[in-house]
Amino acid sequence: MKAVLYHCRNFQTVITGLSTRGNKITSEQIINRALQATNSVVAFITIEDQDNIEFTTTLLCDEIEKMCLDTKHLQVVIVPFAHLSNNLAKAKEAIRAFDVIQEKLEAKNLITHRDHFGSDKSLKIEVFGHAGNVRFRSF
Amino acid sequence: MKAVLYHCRNFQTVITGLSTRGNKITSEQIINRALQATNSVVAFITIEDQDNIEFTTTLLCDEIEKMCLDTKHLQVVIVPFAHLSNNLAKAKEAIRAFDVIQEKLEAKNLITHRDHFGSDKSLKIEVFGHAGNVRFRSF
Repeated sequence: MKAVLYHCRNFQTVITGLSTRGNKITSEQIINRALQATNSVVAFITIEDQDNIEFTTTLLCDEIEKMCLDTKHLQVVIVPFAHLSNNLAKAKEAIRAFDVIQEKLEAKNLITHRDHFGSDKSLKIEVFGHAGNVRFRSF
Repeated sequence: MKAVLYHCRNFQTVITGLSTRGNKITSEQIINRALQATNSVVAFITIEDQDNIEFTTTLLCDEIEKMCLDTKHLQVVIVPFAHLSNNLAKAKEAIRAFDVIQEKLEAKNLITHRDHFGSDKSLKIEVFGHAGNVRFRSF
């Protein structure tokens, strides 16, 4: 599992199409085409093949919670992001991992938004400028 | 070497402070505190320890050129980005690699901007929505 966490003033995505790359991608059902959040920790996350989901999601959610406490913005956006590794988990496993991440963040009383898995999206992101505003984690 | 390439409508960074993390970071001299570019391929690049600079920069610049041709936007922003790996090259080596990347991109007649190495920055990025708008490369 790999993740890049950003402390964001603003975050916006709009789905522009379903991913077609690779025949193993199964997209989630689209409920909302657009997602927007202000003053939050935005976590771009890649689930890798052979990740121990229970273990790595716990470590990741602890790091996200820490960044929320550091920045005093107790809101998170989970962004499924297939671009931090070439060793991707199967879609079904990845979606299960994102379910677990969402549950664990909500259990920490963090307001949690979740972006769509399996689509091409436009993206607008505005990151605050300060030390520790961007953090890489690999588990 | 790891890189994430984004096809961007707009990109903006402003330096807010020099990096203090780790005593091995040697920041470049600041010439411009702000950098802005529209309609470009923005390459967030992490130089890793033991990278074969000549070899990996050639592969990366070929990928960047390909993305410029695919998107018909022949402009590149090189962003030194320490958040795609935990195995970072020393600052001096990394800066040398960014010099080589810049030279190679300019030799391909791509308009090339280069962001500052060794600072905390605010960031605004607006990514076009289409297949292949974000690409991960690892060499």
